[in-house]
Amino acid sequence: MSGERIWLFDTTLRDGGQTRGVDFSHADKIAIATALDDIGIDYVEGGWPGANPTDDAFFASPPKLKNAKMVAFGMTRRGGRSTANDPGLNAVIDADVPAACLVGKTWDFHVKTALNITFEENLDMISQSIAAAKARGREAMFDCEHFFDGYKSNPAFALDCVKAAHAGGASWVVLCDTNGGTLPDDVFEIVSAVKQACPDVALGIHCHNDAGVAVANSLAAIRAGARQVQGTINGLGERCGNADLISLIPSLVLKTEFETGIPKDKLPKLMALSRMLDERLNRAPNAHAPYVGAAAFAHKGGLHASAAQKDPRTYEHVAPETVGNERHYLVSDQAGRSNMLARFAEFGIEVDPKDPRLDRLIAVVKEKEFEGWAFDSAEASFELLARRMLGEPSDYFSIGRFRVMDERRFNAKGDLVVESEATATIVVGADTHHEAAVGNGPVNAVDTAMRKALVSAYPTLADVELVDYKVRILDANDDLAGTGAITRVLIEFRVPDGTTWRTVGLSTNIIDASVAALGDGMIWKLVHDNVPAP
Amino acid sequence: MSGERIWLFDTTLRDGGQTRGVDFSHADKIAIATALDDIGIDYVEGGWPGANPTDDAFFASPPKLKNAKMVAFGMTRRGGRSTANDPGLNAVIDADVPAACLVGKTWDFHVKTALNITFEENLDMISQSIAAAKARGREAMFDCEHFFDGYKSNPAFALDCVKAAHAGGASWVVLCDTNGGTLPDDVFEIVSAVKQACPDVALGIHCHNDAGVAVANSLAAIRAGARQVQGTINGLGERCGNADLISLIPSLVLKTEFETGIPKDKLPKLMALSRMLDERLNRAPNAHAPYVGAAAFAHKGGLHASAAQKDPRTYEHVAPETVGNERHYLVSDQAGRSNMLARFAEFGIEVDPKDPRLDRLIAVVKEKEFEGWAFDSAEASFELLARRMLGEPSDYFSIGRFRVMDERRFNAKGDLVVESEATATIVVGADTHHEAAVGNGPVNAVDTAMRKALVSAYPTLADVELVDYKVRILDANDDLAGTGAITRVLIEFRVPDGTTWRTVGLSTNIIDASVAALGDGMIWKLVHDNVPAP
Repeated sequence: MSGERIWLFDTTLRDGGQTRGVDFSHADKIAIATALDDIGIDYVEGGWPGANPTDDAFFASPPKLKNAKMVAFGMTRRGGRSTANDPGLNAVIDADVPAACLVGKTWDFHVKTALNITFEENLDMISQSIAAAKARGREAMFDCEHFFDGYKSNPAFALDCVKAAHAGGASWVVLCDTNGGTLPDDVFEIVSAVKQACPDVALGIHCHNDAGVAVANSLAAIRAGARQVQGTINGLGERCGNADLISLIPSLVLKTEFETGIPKDKLPKLMALSRMLDERLNRAPNAHAPYVGAAAFAHKGGLHASAAQKDPRTYEHVAPETVGNERHYLVSDQAGRSNMLARFAEFGIEVDPKDPRLDRLIAVVKEKEFEGWAFDSAEASFELLARRMLGEPSDYFSIGRFRVMDERRFNAKGDLVVESEATATIVVGADTHHEAAVGNGPVNAVDTAMRKALVSAYPTLADVELVDYKVRILDANDDLAGTGAITRVLIEFRVPDGTTWRTVGLSTNIIDASVAALGDGMIWKLVHDNVPAP
Repeated sequence: MSGERIWLFDTTLRDGGQTRGVDFSHADKIAIATALDDIGIDYVEGGWPGANPTDDAFFASPPKLKNAKMVAFGMTRRGGRSTANDPGLNAVIDADVPAACLVGKTWDFHVKTALNITFEENLDMISQSIAAAKARGREAMFDCEHFFDGYKSNPAFALDCVKAAHAGGASWVVLCDTNGGTLPDDVFEIVSAVKQACPDVALGIHCHNDAGVAVANSLAAIRAGARQVQGTINGLGERCGNADLISLIPSLVLKTEFETGIPKDKLPKLMALSRMLDERLNRAPNAHAPYVGAAAFAHKGGLHASAAQKDPRTYEHVAPETVGNERHYLVSDQAGRSNMLARFAEFGIEVDPKDPRLDRLIAVVKEKEFEGWAFDSAEASFELLARRMLGEPSDYFSIGRFRVMDERRFNAKGDLVVESEATATIVVGADTHHEAAVGNGPVNAVDTAMRKALVSAYPTLADVELVDYKVRILDANDDLAGTGAITRVLIEFRVPDGTTWRTVGLSTNIIDASVAALGDGMIWKLVHDNVPAP
């Protein structure tokens, strides 16, 4: 089997569009199809002509692709009609794209329960619909819905469906694990059996992730003889999603002898493709995603980090740059000297590895982590701590007094309203700035007051946004009424160029913790803009 | 192989603690270990004694488990030392828990590159360290670090390491895919080869998810003869995580002939276990997680939903209730109604299933969940909402005006101190109580003021403690400075008999949201104490 070509079929725009909360715009669809074409995907399933206005608009003027074939998805003809008399089918095969993928029943239980037709009629629906697509000049494929459940229930009927599609002229017959519950061994055995029974049929595989093994099922099917594999970017799809092509493709390219339309030197583009989809959908990327996650090559344990620095192969299954990712060293109480040094290099801080201040920094980090600081979630606070302990000046300002008032009271109309108002004093060099602001809650009020004071001294801070704010009470065994409860605030900041950074603040008082994290966030920005301290 | 027992080993508290952004507190560790024990996990790896202050505190007084064995993790002795002379090893095997799991090198490349010792010394380190743990009365296990890379590089040496651990008296020899890059076929072949070469050794498997196939790799190893499987809740773990036990366990129990320590009727508890970990970590649960995700059994409108309603097997690989999950139809309120009724039964509220108020309640809950209320995490707030809509009186008090002041100022000694002070007005029947209090932060201050007012009317509230307080900003894409950001507060309460309950509050203002959640918490207690309303 080695060296054989695997054909990649992306259904992000069709099956991925069934994901709860996903709603592609026309512009999204065009951008995603173009990106899939660029990277070397063979088939791009664009949607279901006739199913909704977005898909209709998309297929009315489908984007021109360089290499990939655009595919229109739909159903085989309905029972009791001719193909010519089925407007749904014709909307699909009339779409002006090179290929059509038609889905039909292959599970006897469904044919009886859902369609209530004879087996013969079901086979005719398959072969005639595929033939109609071919007659319209399309490359025609058949998706065998519920194939694995169907094969377990009635293998002869399931195979008859495969043969009917082949007889109709299907270029690919795609075995679908529609409910996503099949385990890899069953997939391997069933695909092997189909390959043996139908050696001339080009088989595809379409897996869902309901048991968390969609990628492994796809690999098992390929080993058993499937040569087309369907999936989605980032594993988008109904319920638990489809097979994630962003995991599957690097494994196929880097770890098997199979070939795909994506050459090795294009693999680094997978990272951008994955992020682009998340951005289009306004979702936070999964930091722990295989290959492309922000944490996929992040080393936290001290031992791991020191070994990885000696030779990255010791703790990395592939080199991060082969998939467009980067190596990171995290700082936490699990980390040691090598993590620290590696982080310093990332920040551009040069330190002699024998500098005794390093030991003190490690001790301080461990102690602070024990108290509840979370530096691996707040790399900007760690960077500032390190710069301070290494003697770098970062005295851009100091936060003096502040006062926040939250009041619920009856307004003139007799309604209960809540208002927050803050005053804050910021000392910048010789100047003291005292400002007041109202806000949407106390943190917003004090942030606004602080920022009023700071922006006049440092205009670069004007476009810093707060994008996330999380609070946790540490040591949940303590009564909040006691004196031991510590509040930890994590804040994420962003500027218009897309740079983000995160800080942490701890205090018994949530406002105080917030102010500390806000202050660090501002200082980090000033350091990175090379603004001179007063 | 059918019917054979698989031993479940959870390493959430150790390997899961290496996840980026994860920082377990001592209280987290105790709660998670107890929950793992409750559900029927066989081994709970609690951490690494001697590695950091949190793990030291945990092993100084480990929680008493009913069935599970607590495991201390560590490394085999260092090269060139005796086991007696290695303080790191002794910290692990001296920990007062029944079992120790020691990791050592089994990849020749690491022995040469990282340790720079002879192969013989490496084998001695393994057998002697395991023997030392056994001599200390522990069940001793050996984690073969990088076993799969090691076996590919030098199978004879890798097998010698397995044999050395066995010779030392290891109860389990665990084959670890430390870099997480091995594919299922390789795992199956290599575990099969080890089983053939060492038929007397009880083998375990420990997979990482760097290629997105950790669950499938674990299943492949079990099929090849491994009988212990290591993983984490929600697939927590360094980089891309470990094998996700929340996916693996239902597949093992429902889809294979193997047996585990978790009986079928305990599987529904997996859902709560998964959510509990996310809540402890203040993370949003993965809606698309296999088995337990909110979308795992969500059927979109149209064909799927109507077919699933005719017979759920048509679109579900397992019944959602077998894993504690629920079916959702986005087009139908039927599922909502049966949910509501089931929950009412839990609360002891009797409602006629045809009561028209149920429809209104379903509509209100859907609307509120859409706005960001999280009734799953705040069952007490849901119960109160339901009781109110069903006309039960719960007008114990109303919260009127309040005012909270947080101030950072210089005290008489010239130090900056932060103080919070609150006033609150509570109306109980015909009486208006106006009280003031200082507190450890604004929420504590307003809670204290409210409680002062309430306890005089309702002495039963005096011993209610706040045990957890979590805040999340919903719609993290909004600038906090904008008007759209909503703050959600979740509070957990406890009384001395151990009863706990949780409430939720939403507002643009964190103090207002907190006051709402605090008020609900007090009312829930009064309802459950059968206190008559004034």
